[in-house]
Amino acid sequence: MNRRTLLRLVGRAGGAAAVFTNMKALGLLPGAARGVERPQLVAQSGEGVKIAILGAGMAGLTAAYELSKAGYDCTVLEALDRPGGRNWTVRGGDVIGEMESTQTCPFDRNESLYFNVGPARIPYHHVNLLSYCKELGVPLEVIVNDNRAAFFQDDNAFEGKPVLNRRVANDTRGFVAELLAKAMNGNALDAEISPEDRESLLEMVRSFGDLDPDLLTYQGSGRAGYVVPPGAGTVVGTRNEPIDLSELLRSDFWRFKLQFAEGFNQAATMLQPVGGMDQIARGFERQIGDLITYNAAVSQIRKTPAGVQIVYTDKTSGSEQSLEADYAICTFPLSVLSQIDADFSPAYQQAIAAGSQSYVNAMKVAFQARRFWEEDYQIYGGISWTTRDITQIWYPSGGFHSTQGIVVGAYIWSNDIASRWEPMSPEERLMQAIEEGEAIHPGYGNEVSPTTGCSIAWGKVPYSEGGWMGWNSEDLESAYLTLLEPDDRIFLAGEHLSYLTGWQEGSVLSAFEAIEGIASRVQGVG
Amino acid sequence: MNRRTLLRLVGRAGGAAAVFTNMKALGLLPGAARGVERPQLVAQSGEGVKIAILGAGMAGLTAAYELSKAGYDCTVLEALDRPGGRNWTVRGGDVIGEMESTQTCPFDRNESLYFNVGPARIPYHHVNLLSYCKELGVPLEVIVNDNRAAFFQDDNAFEGKPVLNRRVANDTRGFVAELLAKAMNGNALDAEISPEDRESLLEMVRSFGDLDPDLLTYQGSGRAGYVVPPGAGTVVGTRNEPIDLSELLRSDFWRFKLQFAEGFNQAATMLQPVGGMDQIARGFERQIGDLITYNAAVSQIRKTPAGVQIVYTDKTSGSEQSLEADYAICTFPLSVLSQIDADFSPAYQQAIAAGSQSYVNAMKVAFQARRFWEEDYQIYGGISWTTRDITQIWYPSGGFHSTQGIVVGAYIWSNDIASRWEPMSPEERLMQAIEEGEAIHPGYGNEVSPTTGCSIAWGKVPYSEGGWMGWNSEDLESAYLTLLEPDDRIFLAGEHLSYLTGWQEGSVLSAFEAIEGIASRVQGVG
Repeated sequence: MNRRTLLRLVGRAGGAAAVFTNMKALGLLPGAARGVERPQLVAQSGEGVKIAILGAGMAGLTAAYELSKAGYDCTVLEALDRPGGRNWTVRGGDVIGEMESTQTCPFDRNESLYFNVGPARIPYHHVNLLSYCKELGVPLEVIVNDNRAAFFQDDNAFEGKPVLNRRVANDTRGFVAELLAKAMNGNALDAEISPEDRESLLEMVRSFGDLDPDLLTYQGSGRAGYVVPPGAGTVVGTRNEPIDLSELLRSDFWRFKLQFAEGFNQAATMLQPVGGMDQIARGFERQIGDLITYNAAVSQIRKTPAGVQIVYTDKTSGSEQSLEADYAICTFPLSVLSQIDADFSPAYQQAIAAGSQSYVNAMKVAFQARRFWEEDYQIYGGISWTTRDITQIWYPSGGFHSTQGIVVGAYIWSNDIASRWEPMSPEERLMQAIEEGEAIHPGYGNEVSPTTGCSIAWGKVPYSEGGWMGWNSEDLESAYLTLLEPDDRIFLAGEHLSYLTGWQEGSVLSAFEAIEGIASRVQGVG
Repeated sequence: MNRRTLLRLVGRAGGAAAVFTNMKALGLLPGAARGVERPQLVAQSGEGVKIAILGAGMAGLTAAYELSKAGYDCTVLEALDRPGGRNWTVRGGDVIGEMESTQTCPFDRNESLYFNVGPARIPYHHVNLLSYCKELGVPLEVIVNDNRAAFFQDDNAFEGKPVLNRRVANDTRGFVAELLAKAMNGNALDAEISPEDRESLLEMVRSFGDLDPDLLTYQGSGRAGYVVPPGAGTVVGTRNEPIDLSELLRSDFWRFKLQFAEGFNQAATMLQPVGGMDQIARGFERQIGDLITYNAAVSQIRKTPAGVQIVYTDKTSGSEQSLEADYAICTFPLSVLSQIDADFSPAYQQAIAAGSQSYVNAMKVAFQARRFWEEDYQIYGGISWTTRDITQIWYPSGGFHSTQGIVVGAYIWSNDIASRWEPMSPEERLMQAIEEGEAIHPGYGNEVSPTTGCSIAWGKVPYSEGGWMGWNSEDLESAYLTLLEPDDRIFLAGEHLSYLTGWQEGSVLSAFEAIEGIASRVQGVG
């Protein structure tokens, strides 16, 4: 039994104590993060076993790569003409086809001018995905997720003006600390705090908020930045005045935006492949590209007495083809799978239908522009947040100081907003993104233009039909569990079959589950 | 009058209000950070004027670059055989000469195997230094300063075991928030908080600390990481248990280590030149290398009726040489300058002597090693902290997933610790760094070795004799002000003449002051 299998079993039994005990028994450090959990397949154990893998996204590529290493005879059917699925990077000249529109990316061709329309970041602890980056020779660099020089903009606070992240972040800390110090000094917390801890706690609170050491009040802090920064000679520096607490509370930053980069999957260090996320898909393709049939649009998934039969259309010739295999791994998003003619059991069909309703129809917009964010605002990577529909502006974390860059002018993951933006023409989306971005960067419209931008609405992308799965809690207790088990010889995989939905690591791990499920069957131990 | 001059004058008058008013008058955005403040010298205004620049560190290089652009006839005297001064990057085969020892760096030669023995990071708002990186074609990348995957280790808490940064950071937030919520619910802060703000504030506190939404207590948080991270299938994930508050208080993390990366000069985005900090010095050298006389050790600084006379030894030939000039800019650290035979006024001599006592004798140790921090701990850049002498371990922010890397095994900036470490032999320093690093990374001694490491003690480096200036508050009110003014035709520059001591931006800005001082004299307007 490998480490992952054990942890999976222990996880089912539940409880941190059980996990700890078992990890100790295995000699695993609780301090260190998880290790790489590749399936350990017996060499040549798959010889003579045919696997049909539906979809060359991250789950399908992982499955083909690992299974073929153990001798399985894999065929990957992919409807598009490229690997990666939602792992997709768009560059100048690339075509973005949606159901109701087609755009050609207008960027100049240049290695730093790319747009990760799908996933754009990798947390440091997504060790399985990272292990493939290493193995496949995909160079990584840091992506800035939290930048104190970026802005928050809220139409309902600060007269709608953009406010520096570092002011909001540090003034908030200051006021929280000041209030706690006041409560402690008023003896309101004496029942909560032992006399031994009291002094240390007050000191901690002071340091935490950078409070005035004598008054224990927040008088502003260099952490929040300067109107005139310290310099040479007599320029001692003039700090920003603290923002009024009531104004901070009127804004929405603190609801989650301010804490965003403390999240388990968002905290430093976050990484990105140099030159675009699709470098990972291309890395897999270099290894197993010969197993992939591109332009193969699956229309039927059939159970046969001996295994499975997959019917697909060769989009190049228009001809219908058939593939027989012993097992299938289907990685299609449920929104796509639910529309395919398939021999699934009624329970399975129902579960697929349920999940197909829960996709997050994420959208992104990007523009090529002068790197005004660096030149005028000293913003090197990271994210500005706004209450407007565009939600975020992302700045590139590489290619610093070059003449042009790609700014992500909208990253939307609200289905409510997407439902209003999806029907817009590509140009209308860009126009609205420009107008809204103006609130964060006055003069934005002079820097970006509809002729230098493009957009993607994942809900409208054929063969994806959604950004990622957003299981509701009810389906997670039923449909999700149903789909974790194979239906006869058909195994499902993809980010939707993980607790890391929307993350490539979830796709990779779900592929491991399918691989191990098949291997158990083949070896007669499952 | 340029923007910088105005801000300097306003800064002297003091007060944020005055600065704001004046910035608005100038049409400057208070939201945006400072702009680049290069001296605006009249073209050819320096023709026929000879300048002796003492030292080819960042201040000297800046002065030579800017003055020569305006036609000044500059000669830079540099005691070493390279530009940069404390801007220094060591690679395999380089020699580190201290007063009592000589080391040859044992690293393999490889572009990612470098050791920034001096400054290693550039804050995003050090716009003048960054403008030179851009102008001189020095590529930059992100340096991770704060990594939630790194460790805190305290001999007085947690049984001395290393604890993940993300646990300490987020459990601290959780407890601070819980206590504040309790105080508010006990009505202890009713006098401080208006009824309108109360609900929002409670919500803010809840979100800030990731409190249980009903109980408003801290029950742990995914932000603090997982024993078993969420995965595919049924692996929903098992969170780390919260650390006990009393144990957190017993540790010293919160005194400043935990807040460190919120500091004005430490907050994201932090940058580094690709391949080593010395790329900036080399960039200047490409432009004005012909103005630099290397191996020129200054022994006398004389005032003459017509200007200055500099006597120096050509270390290659051993011969004594003399340089006459109309003005001098002396960038030597005061610890070095105080030992030079010079015609300074008594007040000046006294000020130099006072400042010479206040240097921070920083030390660093580095090893080449397997990138065990990535492979075993998922640490990509950033810093671990310890209460032991080594103070920090820094992990490289580039070259990810290559086979070997350079880990900074100690970064010490306490003169108390340095006074104990400086007298050690190079090998003794490495042995002690290995022993102490073991507390953060058990088995460290199997990864690094005295044969793969080297060290620097800046207090023992000839022509530097210190890491950076650490003015005491008294001298800042007298000696510092004295040295800001020229002594006759001799101007001082360097990080020590700024409020950004220890930062290259301080050197650059202080050079701007000297340049403008000379230009005013030459143009008769000063």
